[in-house]
Amino acid sequence: MEELLGGSLRSLAQTISHVENETLQAPLLLDSLFPHMGHAYRVGVTGPPGAGKSTLVDKITQVYRDSGKRVGIIVVDPSSPFTGGALLGDRLRMSDHYLDEGVFIRSMATRGETGGLAARSQEVGDLLDAAGYDIIIFETVGVGQVELDVVETVDTTLVVLVPESGDDIQLMKAGIIEIGDIFIINKSDREGARQLGHILEQLLALKEEQVEWKTPVCQTSATLGTGIEELMQCLERHHSHLKDTGLHTSKRRDRARQRVHRLVADQVMSDFWNTTRLDIMERGLDTVPPYQLSRSILEES
Amino acid sequence: MEELLGGSLRSLAQTISHVENETLQAPLLLDSLFPHMGHAYRVGVTGPPGAGKSTLVDKITQVYRDSGKRVGIIVVDPSSPFTGGALLGDRLRMSDHYLDEGVFIRSMATRGETGGLAARSQEVGDLLDAAGYDIIIFETVGVGQVELDVVETVDTTLVVLVPESGDDIQLMKAGIIEIGDIFIINKSDREGARQLGHILEQLLALKEEQVEWKTPVCQTSATLGTGIEELMQCLERHHSHLKDTGLHTSKRRDRARQRVHRLVADQVMSDFWNTTRLDIMERGLDTVPPYQLSRSILEES
Repeated sequence: MEELLGGSLRSLAQTISHVENETLQAPLLLDSLFPHMGHAYRVGVTGPPGAGKSTLVDKITQVYRDSGKRVGIIVVDPSSPFTGGALLGDRLRMSDHYLDEGVFIRSMATRGETGGLAARSQEVGDLLDAAGYDIIIFETVGVGQVELDVVETVDTTLVVLVPESGDDIQLMKAGIIEIGDIFIINKSDREGARQLGHILEQLLALKEEQVEWKTPVCQTSATLGTGIEELMQCLERHHSHLKDTGLHTSKRRDRARQRVHRLVADQVMSDFWNTTRLDIMERGLDTVPPYQLSRSILEES
Repeated sequence: MEELLGGSLRSLAQTISHVENETLQAPLLLDSLFPHMGHAYRVGVTGPPGAGKSTLVDKITQVYRDSGKRVGIIVVDPSSPFTGGALLGDRLRMSDHYLDEGVFIRSMATRGETGGLAARSQEVGDLLDAAGYDIIIFETVGVGQVELDVVETVDTTLVVLVPESGDDIQLMKAGIIEIGDIFIINKSDREGARQLGHILEQLLALKEEQVEWKTPVCQTSATLGTGIEELMQCLERHHSHLKDTGLHTSKRRDRARQRVHRLVADQVMSDFWNTTRLDIMERGLDTVPPYQLSRSILEES
């Protein structure tokens, strides 16, 4: 543990493996590092495939590196078994920061089941926090439910779109408009960027909490490097907003509350479903109405 | 209850309201109708907005009506508060079957929270089942998580795409390729239909269970009425496949098991979180590591 706190990459990687593989030591390691957590600024980056999220993350990372900050990047990929883990290597090799010791990149993929991926990536974020990374970026691959779960737990969420995303907004309405703290129209040198900006601003005007934080829409081109400065100013403004309003603390508490709820529910329900109760359920499934069956199971002690 | 079984639309609508509003009587009503459930064939229709799902559902409904079957249509719309409930009226007015007593259309929207919408729509399906509808179509508005939850519980899932959906397939990979039993390329008179068909067939070839059921890709134009006959044959084949392999029964059991799990977990966890335990959690959130805090809560009895 001292090694991880002292900056050992080997120790960090080993501890992450414990969390990813959900070993018996993982809870102990996480709990013992708890006093060293809570300093990092957590940024989530989500948006459809092809929006240029990775390039944008690289540019943001560069700005933070130039000011001496250490950056952790967690790439979360709840892909179906079709795509597998090919992405990690690509992401690492494509990064400008492949050889920079001040940048730690880790890809987390599902292993058959998506359940728990968001929770595990959050715990890996905690480890990077304890290891002294100032900024932790959660980069997602798409905009599915797991991705939304991931960015729901960060301090600031960036939603990255491209001018062609106009049609996708409908598709993404369930959650994505609500979840973004800053919207980015990337590849904004292409046609339709201004128009999409207007559509977004109209949608965002309907969000309730626009009085306290007016969600900005930034136009960038990560490849050309334009608009990055304005984006960094938006990030800085949102970070200050969180601290000024106390939202920073309440978001951290929400994360902790959510996690304790999950840990407790997992244990309580796994204790509850003993063989007797499972038997009652299986025997009754075809013939006993569901509410009555539930009552019989609940009454069995 | 006798009135509902006897075909009273008024009684059916009243019972649905009980389920939608989660009244105290809802569990009793559902349980008492349980012996009359289990005969209907449940079909889910999902796909991105603008794919023509409603028109297609109307065409399918017409074919079933022509053969004397009664059809229930449940439109599930987990929209954000932005769109509200405007859809229902449109969907009703646009349907060819607005005035047909053999067709029952009901729209179900979220009311602020999406939790439970999939479960409630399934219970409304059960009511239509008990009321003697032969076919129950669950039509979704988009392809979000709730929509996937909805179609996960049906017998046969149709995924409706359009030739332009090529780019969206990436976006939708998390779940939608796995969940479809029959794929439909609607508006297939447009350019790119054949190409999308090839892409889909390649993706589907990687699905594991292709030995037992080779997922077909149908080309339709719901507006022009082409391809509907082939689609109906695919539906008929899949229905037979389910019955021949016993999957029909195991899917019904999965639905029942999932529901009992949920009912029991809701009750157990709501009993568990008494004020003492909530107090321990709230007092510990800032200072006690999460696993240790969970243990303290679990040890409190």
